[in-house]
Amino acid sequence: MKTRAAVAFEAKKPLEIVELDLEGPKEGEVLVEIMATGLCHTDAYTLSGTDPEGKFPAVLGHEGAGIVREIGAGVTSVKPDDHVIPLYTPECRTCEYCLNPKTNLCQRIRSTQGQGLMPDGTSRFRYKGETIYHYMGTSTFSNFTVLPEIAVAKIRDDAPFDTSCYVGCGVTTGVGAVVNTAKVEPGSRVVVFGLGGIGLNVIQGAKMAGASQIVGVDINPDRAEWGRKFGMTDFLNPKDGGDIVERIVNLTGGGADYSFECIGNTDVMRQALESCHKGWGESIIIGVAGAGEEIATRPFQLVTGRSWRGSAFGGARGRTDVPKIVDWYMNGQIEIDPMITHKLSLEEINKGFDLMHEGTSIRAVVVY
Amino acid sequence: MKTRAAVAFEAKKPLEIVELDLEGPKEGEVLVEIMATGLCHTDAYTLSGTDPEGKFPAVLGHEGAGIVREIGAGVTSVKPDDHVIPLYTPECRTCEYCLNPKTNLCQRIRSTQGQGLMPDGTSRFRYKGETIYHYMGTSTFSNFTVLPEIAVAKIRDDAPFDTSCYVGCGVTTGVGAVVNTAKVEPGSRVVVFGLGGIGLNVIQGAKMAGASQIVGVDINPDRAEWGRKFGMTDFLNPKDGGDIVERIVNLTGGGADYSFECIGNTDVMRQALESCHKGWGESIIIGVAGAGEEIATRPFQLVTGRSWRGSAFGGARGRTDVPKIVDWYMNGQIEIDPMITHKLSLEEINKGFDLMHEGTSIRAVVVY
Repeated sequence: MKTRAAVAFEAKKPLEIVELDLEGPKEGEVLVEIMATGLCHTDAYTLSGTDPEGKFPAVLGHEGAGIVREIGAGVTSVKPDDHVIPLYTPECRTCEYCLNPKTNLCQRIRSTQGQGLMPDGTSRFRYKGETIYHYMGTSTFSNFTVLPEIAVAKIRDDAPFDTSCYVGCGVTTGVGAVVNTAKVEPGSRVVVFGLGGIGLNVIQGAKMAGASQIVGVDINPDRAEWGRKFGMTDFLNPKDGGDIVERIVNLTGGGADYSFECIGNTDVMRQALESCHKGWGESIIIGVAGAGEEIATRPFQLVTGRSWRGSAFGGARGRTDVPKIVDWYMNGQIEIDPMITHKLSLEEINKGFDLMHEGTSIRAVVVY
Repeated sequence: MKTRAAVAFEAKKPLEIVELDLEGPKEGEVLVEIMATGLCHTDAYTLSGTDPEGKFPAVLGHEGAGIVREIGAGVTSVKPDDHVIPLYTPECRTCEYCLNPKTNLCQRIRSTQGQGLMPDGTSRFRYKGETIYHYMGTSTFSNFTVLPEIAVAKIRDDAPFDTSCYVGCGVTTGVGAVVNTAKVEPGSRVVVFGLGGIGLNVIQGAKMAGASQIVGVDINPDRAEWGRKFGMTDFLNPKDGGDIVERIVNLTGGGADYSFECIGNTDVMRQALESCHKGWGESIIIGVAGAGEEIATRPFQLVTGRSWRGSAFGGARGRTDVPKIVDWYMNGQIEIDPMITHKLSLEEINKGFDLMHEGTSIRAVVVY
């Protein structure tokens, strides 16, 4: 079949909207019509050419929502017309990782996914006979895409695609880091570094979890208003002077019970750890640092009871947790609509990346 | 009253055995006759002059066992003739830290303890009219010492002093890091870096907790035999060549569920973290690094599911947990006797430090 897609033919170049040949789903695979997809910093990171795993030409995009149109042999968990969210972190429920309750990092198809291929080692996309690679196992910048069955979460039919697509990455990453990774308890004091899309979702996750103080930290004062919309109780701008760790410790009465780094800056990761409360504060790294960059601190910080952890895809098991997060959205426990600042056509996708780089969008979504 | 004590009059000098004036217990304090005390690397660290908190002249020693001889006004939890272990980490059961189940770092008397003083801001020790400082709130290198009530753990009367004193620091630090901090589960794969006294106690703690693989790592091949005595299943010497992290990952089938750094070397702390299993491995820092030294790693290590933590006094709440550990010893669930490699008189205490520096002792104990 044919599908319209935005293709990254090479790094640092705008995406090109072309028609691709798409091979139908093989055994254990499903064909999904993508109805909407968010544009995420990780897409931009790969497009910038600095992602060591980036392969070109490829169909980027990993934050989509759509409808199953066809299933391959042996597929039992979804059927045509099911509404689904593609999962860049799949959930096979049988590998060593899925069977360990401490992690969500299913490794079943990790190696082929990292190579831009389906689990059988081939691609379903072609352009004028040439192979086009998949990306993060999802490739949601294509109107139709093929996914392994273990990489789709079935969601309720009444969830709008153009907002629930955000659950495919940003919402789950932020809310999940609070709920699944940190397991923030009611009454906690939470500090969030970086009030972009992820940070705002951490804030609303912390609010939902009953945190009593939610401090947002950002060098952009305009983000204070955004933070307050979702439950932030205090805002600190590091540029206002004074040691930011000391300011946080004073504001929180000794330090954060939980801190979250949502930027990818290794210096901020250190601040996030050191602004945790002695004895029990936990710092969760969500942001992705540049290749080769390192974090550092004095071990005394850990020996006196702080802990340093990380979270990927919000610690969520996609097929199990993503439908729940969509429910929370539909029930009003979390919000998504105000975060979708721009809706674009596929033809406008490069404009969406410009908005992201300018910092003027929280989330730009392409609606097919 | 008078007490015989080994006094550190200044850094880097041998201790001097002298008779001190000891003021009796004030309100909330107890007088304890120390029957035996271990010599620990932390005493040597302070004596070396590199401990930023070190104050001189002082009575060092923090790993003792003895008998309550007198109680001050208001003391209710112990009485004369009770057998006790002094606690350098007290347990007041009323401060913010004691009331938080996530930490054992009671802060009730932290500031005066750090200044070498009793909670009222004065010292009980005098030599020729001059103030001699307390150390770690314990000063067990004195035959009699005065302690806050919240800094003594009552233990059973049938536990020998010359072995159970080791529970006052080393045993609790190692076994407790496994049981309280890491909460190692049966079937876990554990890696222990540094097979000194702490490392051996981590090993026997892991064995008691039902770990299925316990890998010891040390550059001294003689420590392999020591490790095996207490439950080590595999030994790796980093000097045998090859990347130690890679060797551990291969030996454990993917990495440690829990790793413990028992040396205080920041490079080894990094190896300990990076030899943890992706998805769920936890690395616990026990060793104390030199002042100002830093740990570092790529944040990717944490984002892919490893966590970095620390443990002080084995995460133990002294008055609650130390008596339990003495019970484990008396019940044969852990061993102490073979670790006490040298018993000395107080007059021989400097020889004990020499043995420690030579690495020929696991634990040297002074018996009064």
